[in-house]
Amino acid sequence: MLPDNKKSYQMSKEEYDEIKERMKVELSVLQQQVIAAKIPVIILFEGFSASGKGTAISSLILNFDPRGFNVYSMREPVGRELRKPWIARFVERIPAAGRISVFDRSWYSGLTWVREEIISKEDLHSDLEELKLFERQLTDDGYLILKFFLHISEKEQKRRLDRLLMDKETAWRVTKADLEKLKNYKKNLRFYKSVIEVTDCPHARWVIVNAQNRYYMRATVMQRVAEELRVALHKCTTVQPEQEVVGKPYVSKKFTLLHTRKIQDYELNREMSQEEYNKKHSELNDKLQKLHNRIYLNRIPIIIGFEGNDAAGKGGSIRRVARSLDPRGYAVHPISAPTSDELARHYLWRFCLRLPVTGHIAIFDRTWYGRVLVERVEGFTPQVRIMQAYNEINEFEYMLHKWGAIIVKFWMAIDKEEQLNRFKARENTPEKRWKLTEEDWRNREKWDIYENAVDDMLRYTNTEFAPWTVVESNSKLYARIKVLETILDAVEKRLI
Amino acid sequence: MLPDNKKSYQMSKEEYDEIKERMKVELSVLQQQVIAAKIPVIILFEGFSASGKGTAISSLILNFDPRGFNVYSMREPVGRELRKPWIARFVERIPAAGRISVFDRSWYSGLTWVREEIISKEDLHSDLEELKLFERQLTDDGYLILKFFLHISEKEQKRRLDRLLMDKETAWRVTKADLEKLKNYKKNLRFYKSVIEVTDCPHARWVIVNAQNRYYMRATVMQRVAEELRVALHKCTTVQPEQEVVGKPYVSKKFTLLHTRKIQDYELNREMSQEEYNKKHSELNDKLQKLHNRIYLNRIPIIIGFEGNDAAGKGGSIRRVARSLDPRGYAVHPISAPTSDELARHYLWRFCLRLPVTGHIAIFDRTWYGRVLVERVEGFTPQVRIMQAYNEINEFEYMLHKWGAIIVKFWMAIDKEEQLNRFKARENTPEKRWKLTEEDWRNREKWDIYENAVDDMLRYTNTEFAPWTVVESNSKLYARIKVLETILDAVEKRLI
Repeated sequence: MLPDNKKSYQMSKEEYDEIKERMKVELSVLQQQVIAAKIPVIILFEGFSASGKGTAISSLILNFDPRGFNVYSMREPVGRELRKPWIARFVERIPAAGRISVFDRSWYSGLTWVREEIISKEDLHSDLEELKLFERQLTDDGYLILKFFLHISEKEQKRRLDRLLMDKETAWRVTKADLEKLKNYKKNLRFYKSVIEVTDCPHARWVIVNAQNRYYMRATVMQRVAEELRVALHKCTTVQPEQEVVGKPYVSKKFTLLHTRKIQDYELNREMSQEEYNKKHSELNDKLQKLHNRIYLNRIPIIIGFEGNDAAGKGGSIRRVARSLDPRGYAVHPISAPTSDELARHYLWRFCLRLPVTGHIAIFDRTWYGRVLVERVEGFTPQVRIMQAYNEINEFEYMLHKWGAIIVKFWMAIDKEEQLNRFKARENTPEKRWKLTEEDWRNREKWDIYENAVDDMLRYTNTEFAPWTVVESNSKLYARIKVLETILDAVEKRLI
Repeated sequence: MLPDNKKSYQMSKEEYDEIKERMKVELSVLQQQVIAAKIPVIILFEGFSASGKGTAISSLILNFDPRGFNVYSMREPVGRELRKPWIARFVERIPAAGRISVFDRSWYSGLTWVREEIISKEDLHSDLEELKLFERQLTDDGYLILKFFLHISEKEQKRRLDRLLMDKETAWRVTKADLEKLKNYKKNLRFYKSVIEVTDCPHARWVIVNAQNRYYMRATVMQRVAEELRVALHKCTTVQPEQEVVGKPYVSKKFTLLHTRKIQDYELNREMSQEEYNKKHSELNDKLQKLHNRIYLNRIPIIIGFEGNDAAGKGGSIRRVARSLDPRGYAVHPISAPTSDELARHYLWRFCLRLPVTGHIAIFDRTWYGRVLVERVEGFTPQVRIMQAYNEINEFEYMLHKWGAIIVKFWMAIDKEEQLNRFKARENTPEKRWKLTEEDWRNREKWDIYENAVDDMLRYTNTEFAPWTVVESNSKLYARIKVLETILDAVEKRLI
């Protein structure tokens, strides 16, 4: 796997200078083409300490327009970063379309930072699977991922660290951890090997660079980047983007889907008297208030998503939930059409930015399910990508679940007559009129198409770790109580 | 100043319930009007521990649509927050137009978190001045700021903390710091009094609420918020927004402006031979490379801004600077038209988000001076606000300076003929053609109007702590060397 260090990968300064000059023109032209083709590019560097990651990055990016890339030097997480899923701070830094994110250490180093020590291959397995999913989700979305591993021998690493230590200008760069790692060179090498082996995928290959000779290393990095950009650009211009293979929603076999009924099989007219409502509401309110303390103390992150027909009462239900919570421990995220920044990235990106920290509650008023609802119905996104989204969303929620989050998802359902009544009521009530838009009427015309999309959504994303709750909402009182009860159930199950 | 605690501010549950019902309707209607009028609203709560800030916030926000506000519970800064100006994390959370940000503890608490202990009135003075500027900048921009201080007596505070401590469900809420503060109640009271006295300004008044009785306190908070929202909405609809008092650039007397020449008085044809360039460039490059280490070790933040005529060579110069730097220690921020999120907030907000951490370098390709250049020339912003911007920008840069930042600002100047030559060269070079847009030609037609704006900018924002450097750029070689030398000078001056 790793390049043989006995063999010499030498290069003279003259040879390097010549390549460098050529690359300067080539890479800067390629960058302009990447911008024009709107390809988001991730280039990450991993490798032994003192293997020359900084040098590699410096010489590479000199060829790029600095307005088109960012370099992220990732170190161990601190502060609030420790209270988010460990992958989140990498996700936050993915590039927008046409931009390049260069990572000096990446999620591969991130993997080891969240642990006491290097883990055996078996323990690591599930985390690496998660990383592979993460990378595959990006490449499926059109991202290009280049992964470089810079390799030097034990002897060479020792020589370089010693030299840095000797000069007082550079000695501070060598940390205790570096020296510790040098001691465990062989163990580390085995670790890297196994990680690379498992995560070397067709969509995101590793490039292992022999870094004994700095000229050879720098030239290799530049040439490989140019080559990969060329291939990506070529693909981009030759593949027909409008493949109209509609297909069916795809979900990987590893997800067990729970049994789901269709919306039309629900009895949406569940009633509740005002009296019963008052009594239950005050009970549930007290319970949730108390539980919020324990959620905080136990550092459990909670994610609550609301979807539903227009005028089904999402807002009202969210208010009732919010009332029982300490305002310092939750946030409501209204989700509307994505901004230009959000549109230029993977569709799950904006939700990653809004995840709660541990012990907090994030309430989403509309969610990532917009992908398989409005985007599917209105054709904002190619159908092929929509069909992949069911699986991607399951993967996303599984990641949240593994992190420790409680996930509660509501579909607030009303029938067509009830919606008409509510629309009319809104029209006739001055302080509610703002809630009703032209779009609501347009959506109503597509009632059946939406209902199909909802049925598919419920069917293909109803998992044990992130189950759907359909809330029969023709009666607002009944609906609000069911929402509160469902949240309480989910939390109590965990806290017991 | 603070309300007399001997007097009783009592309220019965019945009285409160009645007010609460009334406020429910009133506040929710007012919020809709705030959204329609696009007023950004900040409501902050300060006060003794256990004075009921959480309760006050809970009962207030129940009246609002949760999709229109955020609650920020601010605690002591950690991690990277400590490497930004202390006010930055508050700035990041200012609301967009039509939204409400509620702060549970605010910049007033922030003031004390960055210090070992409470400081004497004199020491505090300059920090409070900075806070006042911050608030005034926001209100000048149309923000509404409501500041609540919840006041309880020493006896009452002790009683409340004791009660919390007795119940094991709530005991964790009482921190050592709380008990410490109780011991120093009188000293703290004096401190709060002096802070409130200094920062009670017409544009951002304090409301001191007697919080001995929770009903009274909650009712008062709701009523005051409603009142202030009504006043703000009234102002909004009656004041003529299009006051065409053009006026002159305004700069407060406290800023000493350095002497500045007009652009036309510069000799833009400064030459440099390729030979001299090569020699100097390699020297400067080496120096900057070494200094970058020391900048990092000394934790100095550096902010470099590039402005200039179209095609003056900003990009080329930025590349030359970037080449001498460790890519892990700097970031280039290209600034173009603001996104919708950015447009909905104060114009300096997006630059606050891009400040470097200590020890890092932020290079801005175009800057906050867009306010007094393109926005002034194209009339994107009312002239009254533009004329205030010179002073606001000086205040902003002064804040950065006080934080410890080195600020370097370049105006890259070429003459009209040279620009024409460069435009034509770009048209004729395929790999450079993307650089030239229709807009460049349109801007060129307004050459004289732009030059006036540039002269005003140089004249009114040239300060000792953030001086302008005009770079004669008809010769690219000369310009690049001057840029590097200027940066080196500024850094060396600080490091010696």
